[in-house]
Amino acid sequence: MQKMVRFYMKFYAYYHSTAAYRIRIALNYKNINHELVSIDLMAGKHHDESYKKHNRQARVPTLDDDGFEIGQSSAILEYLEEKYPEPALLPHDIKKRAWIRYLSQIIISDIHPLNNSGVLNFLKNLLNQDQSKIQLWYHHWVKCGFDALEAILTDHPDCKSFCYGDTPTFADICLIPQVFNAYRFGFPMNNYPTLRRINEHCLLLPYFEKARPENQTDCPLDEKK
Amino acid sequence: MQKMVRFYMKFYAYYHSTAAYRIRIALNYKNINHELVSIDLMAGKHHDESYKKHNRQARVPTLDDDGFEIGQSSAILEYLEEKYPEPALLPHDIKKRAWIRYLSQIIISDIHPLNNSGVLNFLKNLLNQDQSKIQLWYHHWVKCGFDALEAILTDHPDCKSFCYGDTPTFADICLIPQVFNAYRFGFPMNNYPTLRRINEHCLLLPYFEKARPENQTDCPLDEKK
Repeated sequence: MQKMVRFYMKFYAYYHSTAAYRIRIALNYKNINHELVSIDLMAGKHHDESYKKHNRQARVPTLDDDGFEIGQSSAILEYLEEKYPEPALLPHDIKKRAWIRYLSQIIISDIHPLNNSGVLNFLKNLLNQDQSKIQLWYHHWVKCGFDALEAILTDHPDCKSFCYGDTPTFADICLIPQVFNAYRFGFPMNNYPTLRRINEHCLLLPYFEKARPENQTDCPLDEKK
Repeated sequence: MQKMVRFYMKFYAYYHSTAAYRIRIALNYKNINHELVSIDLMAGKHHDESYKKHNRQARVPTLDDDGFEIGQSSAILEYLEEKYPEPALLPHDIKKRAWIRYLSQIIISDIHPLNNSGVLNFLKNLLNQDQSKIQLWYHHWVKCGFDALEAILTDHPDCKSFCYGDTPTFADICLIPQVFNAYRFGFPMNNYPTLRRINEHCLLLPYFEKARPENQTDCPLDEKK
């Protein structure tokens, strides 16, 4: 008789959430079985009390590993890496790990927090900013971060097919969703040949491709390719 | 004859930088010898080309470990923890580590990026917001993050003297500088008894006390206690 394996990893996410997109790539790359629970951000479902008991910040993503629940994509990435070390998304050498976390955090801490929907809505509704000002804001912070990343990566001896070396790391997992987000908001990518090259390379790989927003089951039909 | 030990860890920082304050606590707690290089943010020294070659984002802090340079406080914290594991700032258990990183990232990724000086200056100079609107913005994002943290920590069985357990972790290292920042901007802390209790406990400890902005050599005399 086949042994029953009880499995319980829930992933609360939404197709166009940049932070959820990061986790999808890691789950795919490590081939971690999980159940998706879609939280419709457009309908405000993240503010429902039934969801907030899983995530007090009312944000996605949340990972629920058999009752152990955490939010924050970089905490989730580190957890998945420690629980399922192979295939690795961080090298063993501590300087290389630090370098990759540095690249990742430029996106996680200095680009994305300034352009998520809550922030843009605050600019619009509480500070009465029109669309041109919101675009000025959005483009400014993406430019600051991408200018730094492009300068750091271009000609760096360890930047090859990916941000670091020949296998994906946290840095690519952060970069590709942020480039998606940038295109979505009409940010011109022409000054970033290195970021574009890495983005194009990654999107040819099945674990990135499968993680794209338009390939999610909760993506509306009119946004699918 | 005594052996010469070559030492070279440089720490580029500024006394009132919240992110630099985090690193100071870790350096003190782990008793890591280092040379401080003060970058005067008020005088715009972070934009000098001579500094930007160390940090392409023109931000502090930067850690230079014998020529290996990285920015981003959470990457630096992880690096220091991996290089100098004792005394530990993260437990060994992977769920506990994940939990502490989750708490830390609420501050690093969702509070601090929205209230650093670059963002507040953008609101003032590019979006023409007056001081009352800037305060509305500042208080809103601190409230969102602190409300979540207070709810998560209060009555949590593992929240004791510190955010987690009886020794300091990354979470306290993030919390205490953010509370300093909140007081500095007149944010009312009366609704956060748990955060206040942890803050008061930590500030009695020498490695936190020594890291306070007003105890730094680059703090102007009129801001010292």
